[in-house]
Formats: sequence, C-alpha cells, structure tokens
Amino acid sequence: MNYREVTVTGEYVGRLETGADWREEIETLAEDVGAEAGWFSALGSVEDAEIWFYDQDDKQYQSVTFDEPLEVAACVGNVGLLDGELFAHTHAVLSRPNGQALAGHINAGTVFAGECQFRAFETPLVRERDESTDLDLWL
Amino acid sequence: MNYREVTVTGEYVGRLETGADWREEIETLAEDVGAEAGWFSALGSVEDAEIWFYDQDDKQYQSVTFDEPLEVAACVGNVGLLDGELFAHTHAVLSRPNGQALAGHINAGTVFAGECQFRAFETPLVRERDESTDLDLWL
Amino acid sequence: MNYREVTVTGEYVGRLETGADWREEIETLAEDVGAEAGWFSALGSVEDAEIWFYDQDDKQYQSVTFDEPLEVAACVGNVGLLDGELFAHTHAVLSRPNGQALAGHINAGTVFAGECQFRAFETPLVRERDESTDLDLWL
Repeated sequence: MNYREVTVTGEYVGRLETGADWREEIETLAEDVGAEAGWFSALGSVEDAEIWFYDQDDKQYQSVTFDEPLEVAACVGNVGLLDGELFAHTHAVLSRPNGQALAGHINAGTVFAGECQFRAFETPLVRERDESTDLDLWL
Repeated sequence: MNYREVTVTGEYVGRLETGADWREEIETLAEDVGAEAGWFSALGSVEDAEIWFYDQDDKQYQSVTFDEPLEVAACVGNVGLLDGELFAHTHAVLSRPNGQALAGHINAGTVFAGECQFRAFETPLVRERDESTDLDLWL
Repeated sequence: MNYREVTVTGEYVGRLETGADWREEIETLAEDVGAEAGWFSALGSVEDAEIWFYDQDDKQYQSVTFDEPLEVAACVGNVGLLDGELFAHTHAVLSRPNGQALAGHINAGTVFAGECQFRAFETPLVRERDESTDLDLWL
C-alpha cells in the first residue's frame, strides 16, 4: 500500500452547470481554485452518460452509452495530473426511474443538476503508467 | 460552475437509530450540532425505502417504494435550508440479498442500522427555485 | 441519534496494491498511520468480490461471491476496533461491463487497482454487540 499524507488547502462546494459535462465541471472547479490534486464526492442527475469498464485481460476500456435521464446516486473520485493536464478520475452510480442502478467509470455525461464537495490538496497527484495494470496511477 | 469555499465548524460521526427515518436522522444530527449546511456520507441498512426519480421533462418527482430489507451500500448528500427548514438532500445506493443494486434520491426509509460522517459548514446553503430545472438548488 | 465530534489527526490518500485484499488494504493503511478510527471513501476495480447481506430477521449475514472482474464504482466505510482488532466496515457498489450494478457489504475482494482517501480520527471507535440488531456497532 503506497500512501501519502495530504495537506488540504481548501474545501469547496459547487453546483454543476446544467448542460455542461459532468467530469469537465469537476476539472473546472479544480482549475478555478488552483488545485492539481484533490478528492471529491458528488450527486445529482444527468441527461445521458458514457460509462467505461476496464477489461483487466485486454487492458482496454470498453464503453457503454446510456442516452436517457439518470439520477447520479453517488459519485466519487479524485483530481490529479495526467500528461500534464488536470484529470478528474470519476466513478459514479446512476439510476433509472424504476430504481435500477448502473455504475462504472464515468467518462462523460450531460449535467441536468449536480452538487459536489471538493477538498483541494497542496501536492499534485501525478498519474504515470503502471506496468502490471497498464493504467495511469498515482503514488 | 458556481462554487463557494466552506469553513468547517466541526466533523461528526453518528449512529442512526434503529426504527427512525434515515433522512430525518441526518437532519436531526445537523440540528443537534447547530449546522445549517454540511456534507455527509453514510452506510448501513434499511427495512424499506422510498426512492425518488426526477422526471427531467415533466419536472416532477416519481416515487418507487421498496418494502423489503436493503443494504445501504453508499449514501451521499448535503444539508441546507429549504423554505427556512433544514433539509438533507440525500442520494443512496441500496442492495438486495443477491447483490442487485437499486439507487436514487432517498426520500424516506426505516433505519435498521446506519453510520454517518457529517462535516458542518459555517455558512448556510440556501435552496431556491432554479428556473431551468425547476429544482430547489443552492449557489 | 448517538453522535460524537471527531478530531482528525491526519488525512491520507493511498493506492491499493494489485493482488491484495480490498478490505485488508484499508486496515493496513489505518495500522500504518496508527489510527484506531477513521472514515474512508474509495474507488477502483477488483478481480472478484465477496458481498454480504445482513438478514434482518435471522440476524445473520448471507454471502454472495462474484468471481469476475468488476469496477468499484463507490466504496464508503469506517475503521474501528472489533474485539480489539482493526476492522474496516466497508460497503461498495460494483459494476459489470454492461453497467449493471451490484452492491452490499464487501467482505473480501482481490484488488486490481484502487484509490482511497482516509481521514484518521484521534479517538477509537469501538464496536460492541447491539441487542436490537445483533450487529457490532459503535457509539
């Protein structure tokens, strides 16, 4: 277990803008407050969502798109640097009108309404290629 | 993206009381510690649950009730003021014995057991009608 | 509602090790930083998972094992002491390639990749048998 103690430089709550992209909104918040690392949780709803699943054998993401309104029942992730750019690694649990839940790595989604909490860290989390998983990981 | 830096006045852990209402328990905690805003995460189980889904076209909530024991696999939300009263905006992911997940906005649920973390903020989050979504949003 | 204000002694981010057990990794982090209580959130993926559902009538856990790669779309819980040992009470929402979500109390799971945030509390959370639920609860 690699770990690091973090120094929090600020805590924020934000309202994601209707019509914007869910993940980009979180990256925008990080950029606006000058953070290159942080942890967030969020909830709300989207008009559609593109969910990724990582194939652990083929070492590639598979994509599924849901072109329908969905609640965002839980969303958790962190902000770091990937190839020098801000990247919000974002997982989410979504739901349909009958309560059925869908979940995974959310690459994109059109915000209907969203609320997030973000804790900015002093030291950047820098993602680098990890050989055993072929994923970009920090620490 | 509208956002605000928050000042945390205290962090709390609480045990939700068996037989009480899941959402009201969180509002009770906020009231007991004198907070008009805050962020929480929680887990546990309920004896039943009423889940809401917001119809983005009709601008109305639809309700589904699950009258069965369910795990609360994840629960996230925030406390603010709605029409001058404390309101815990609460989303949750629930599950059945076979692992099947259900999720959405949880309006009510009878606590079987529950554990929560709550971070109280100094400045109230005041919900007001938002024209484009017809939801009560803060910021 | 029993609750306690907590004093945070440190906040950490960690990378769960590929091949290790998901829950044990969180307990290892708590042990490494000398914490007997804390709150965490996490995300990532596992190669398999053993999920528990608590039967509220029989007062016993039922187990379901998923022997397949799954995303960890959300994971929340807390660290406390159970019979004098560190115990990470861990709930998680998992997902399949088509987005289908599974959820519950995660007892075990082989980490493929995992990222967690942990806030260590000064005062231990000690679990003791609760008569009405027959669960080991703190506070």
